[in-house]
Amino acid sequence: MTYRPKNTKERILHRLKIAQGHLKKVSQMVEDDIYCIDILHQSQAVRRAIEEIDNLILETHLKGCVSEAISKGKKDEAIAEVMNVFKKSN
Amino acid sequence: MTYRPKNTKERILHRLKIAQGHLKKVSQMVEDDIYCIDILHQSQAVRRAIEEIDNLILETHLKGCVSEAISKGKKDEAIAEVMNVFKKSN
Amino acid sequence: MTYRPKNTKERILHRLKIAQGHLKKVSQMVEDDIYCIDILHQSQAVRRAIEEIDNLILETHLKGCVSEAISKGKKDEAIAEVMNVFKKSN
Amino acid sequence: MTYRPKNTKERILHRLKIAQGHLKKVSQMVEDDIYCIDILHQSQAVRRAIEEIDNLILETHLKGCVSEAISKGKKDEAIAEVMNVFKKSN
Repeated sequence: MTYRPKNTKERILHRLKIAQGHLKKVSQMVEDDIYCIDILHQSQAVRRAIEEIDNLILETHLKGCVSEAISKGKKDEAIAEVMNVFKKSN
Repeated sequence: MTYRPKNTKERILHRLKIAQGHLKKVSQMVEDDIYCIDILHQSQAVRRAIEEIDNLILETHLKGCVSEAISKGKKDEAIAEVMNVFKKSN
Repeated sequence: MTYRPKNTKERILHRLKIAQGHLKKVSQMVEDDIYCIDILHQSQAVRRAIEEIDNLILETHLKGCVSEAISKGKKDEAIAEVMNVFKKSN
Repeated sequence: MTYRPKNTKERILHRLKIAQGHLKKVSQMVEDDIYCIDILHQSQAVRRAIEEIDNLILETHLKGCVSEAISKGKKDEAIAEVMNVFKKSN
């Protein structure tokens, strides 16, 4: 149930590494008493980056696990899970 | 222009450290081929945690820099900056 | 391509009618110079109501059109459309 | 406590009227069994339009009531109200 093409997995891991670096930079900015608004812009950029990673994971999930579940006639649980993620992300 | 009470700063740094740990866990989950939906829930929790940190930074900013700017009759730029953050965060 | 169970359609139309009434109330509140914060709470409630309607439409779409497309081996376009909606809604 | 420049008020009312028209169109699209994805795009556009109206109301509120409250040394409640709106809108 965890099909992820190797290069997508690597892409996700690479982006997560970058997001971690940027989140660390937010801490450094707070530590250095940088102007709040500049910190907020950096922090919002991190959130958007994680959001894009989440979209990539979700798309892979729809193309893999969800498509497989639907083909096997087991769509209800798979769709309920996706809707649950979707609602939380709004 | 960067008034932040010492304990608020420490609270923000503490929460950012926790968020960094949780984001690292997302990477580990991807590395370990954990089920996508479980990764997404963890990742969404990280985003919400950063969002709450941002709210704390913004509140501090409104009580400090923005209030000061308004008292000095310089409200326009301060409010434009806040609205800019607000619009991006929607 | 537009499968929607009759009672879901009726539920969606009913909720949309309510949302329209609440949005009209926002106009009335602005007209009557009600306190901005109270207007914003009413307006945010309207947005959340529309968001819930959208979730219902999306769920129906996943269970109907998307499942059908996947069963027919035509998943790519169907998933791209859903991801497009999802990204805009973030 | 409800300062709103006359032309801002009119602008807000004008935009709300347009949003009402577009929301009514969503109902019509559901009624006519239009393709779900097209309905969702229309509906998301309505939400974004209301969001922009909210931003305009909030900006007016910050420039009017909040600035006045801060000048009078009563910032805490005014800022708490704004943060409350902000948190709900995330």
